[in-house]
Amino acid sequence: MKPITRIEQSLAAALATGEQEGCPLKLAGAIRHAVFPGGARIRPQLCLAVAQACGDDDPGLSEAAAVSIELLHCASLVHDDLPCFDDAATRRGRASVHFAFGESLAVLAGDALIVLAFQALSEGAVRSPQRLAPLLATIARGVGMPSGIVAGQAWECEPRVSLAQYQRAKTGALFVAATMAGAQACGVEPEPWRALGDCLGEAYQVADDIRDVAADPDLLGKPMGRDAALCRPSAAGQLGLDGAVRLFDALVERAIAAIPPCPGAAQLRALVRAEAERLVPQSLSGELVRVAA
Amino acid sequence: MKPITRIEQSLAAALATGEQEGCPLKLAGAIRHAVFPGGARIRPQLCLAVAQACGDDDPGLSEAAAVSIELLHCASLVHDDLPCFDDAATRRGRASVHFAFGESLAVLAGDALIVLAFQALSEGAVRSPQRLAPLLATIARGVGMPSGIVAGQAWECEPRVSLAQYQRAKTGALFVAATMAGAQACGVEPEPWRALGDCLGEAYQVADDIRDVAADPDLLGKPMGRDAALCRPSAAGQLGLDGAVRLFDALVERAIAAIPPCPGAAQLRALVRAEAERLVPQSLSGELVRVAA
Repeated sequence: MKPITRIEQSLAAALATGEQEGCPLKLAGAIRHAVFPGGARIRPQLCLAVAQACGDDDPGLSEAAAVSIELLHCASLVHDDLPCFDDAATRRGRASVHFAFGESLAVLAGDALIVLAFQALSEGAVRSPQRLAPLLATIARGVGMPSGIVAGQAWECEPRVSLAQYQRAKTGALFVAATMAGAQACGVEPEPWRALGDCLGEAYQVADDIRDVAADPDLLGKPMGRDAALCRPSAAGQLGLDGAVRLFDALVERAIAAIPPCPGAAQLRALVRAEAERLVPQSLSGELVRVAA
Repeated sequence: MKPITRIEQSLAAALATGEQEGCPLKLAGAIRHAVFPGGARIRPQLCLAVAQACGDDDPGLSEAAAVSIELLHCASLVHDDLPCFDDAATRRGRASVHFAFGESLAVLAGDALIVLAFQALSEGAVRSPQRLAPLLATIARGVGMPSGIVAGQAWECEPRVSLAQYQRAKTGALFVAATMAGAQACGVEPEPWRALGDCLGEAYQVADDIRDVAADPDLLGKPMGRDAALCRPSAAGQLGLDGAVRLFDALVERAIAAIPPCPGAAQLRALVRAEAERLVPQSLSGELVRVAA
């Protein structure tokens, strides 16, 4: 089965457990809207790719870890779009949750998704219960305090922000959780997998900054130019487009070099290259560098 | 050590793990504001009381379960107070989190508290890892979809609400989680403990309705008359004060009768009676009944 199929099926199964009799219909609708149809599912794909590279000896648990990470990502998108943050009317090319269902349901849908994420993880640990606690710790660190994605978003409320610290928490933390959890789900020591997640998270953030100033909003599925409009720190803003593209390429190379020795290392390297090309096509890089010059 | 001391110390330890270097200061402040000083800590007290009655063979895990439930309760208070819900300026006698820290940090503090709750639970399962998954499932059911406290809050967004279903989810679910988790933390079959939580949750909700229309706002620590102002379903509104007080008394008796056979049953019965008297004093009951007559 293709990884994306495993992810979509596992996400659907996780949502179905929450949508049993007695669930308020609008809440169920808001949650479904937040999760389906998805974006590229890049974090759960990364998690499964690492699990695959490590042998994937408990596929139910690696799927649960991937689902947990994606549900937490979806929760963060729903809350980040709220009027008190970005006040974004669109997300993934259609109405944001608060725009479609109202602010109250958007707050609650995000909350319910966080709960569902840990619930789904736990349910996936039937075969390997001893792996649950360390896996949960890794994923929770990617989301909460002191430096998960929620803390990353909270840096926007501080008077002084270091760009590196902000982006590492806001984006990098969940990429680190994805690579480390992918290894842990197979009973593999996770620490050597941190650097891959760290580099890819930074690369992804830089790609996002590039796309925010350069891409077609239809392609992006959300309004562009938001970072500048919100005075949000951005690599493209600080380094210029040219510098941002160079940084992106360097980070992808560092990520590939950081892949630890494992049975599926070659495949994983190829996957990272393909994903990098999808995010910032070489043709676009060339064009951007020309425009910026 | 008194149960309340165990709870406060465990809560402080849980928050300290999140407040390590790198945590944005305002987020840490908002979370601390949400958790300390606490209210009566009635849910974690109930959880520990059940654990005590069941033998409390792994105190670290029962404390973790109690802490997890209280952090989830605190998260729900922070989010329920938001402008899109109650827009409450005060909570526990001082500024609500969004009033003190702003709406963005209130959303994030609630999110971080939910994450921290599962993290703390997981960290408490070192001695009994096989108990973690079922315990997490119980607590998650008390909070998320289809009928935990988040779903309960979401019923306020539906066009039609059954009072019983609304209150069972909004308040009862976390009481059920508290009694069942207290048993599970000691390796005791949780299902027989459901009825106690269910009755106490309903009793507590009725007490809250009574206090909302009858109590001194200084004593309550939050504005009174909110249920009527928000057109929220309320036992006191539907049954009148007299009927609500009778219902409260009947629920407390049902709760006491529902305590399963266990080593500490007698102590637990005494504790439930004392707590009921604290919530709705017999003197107040008499007075309310006279006023309502």
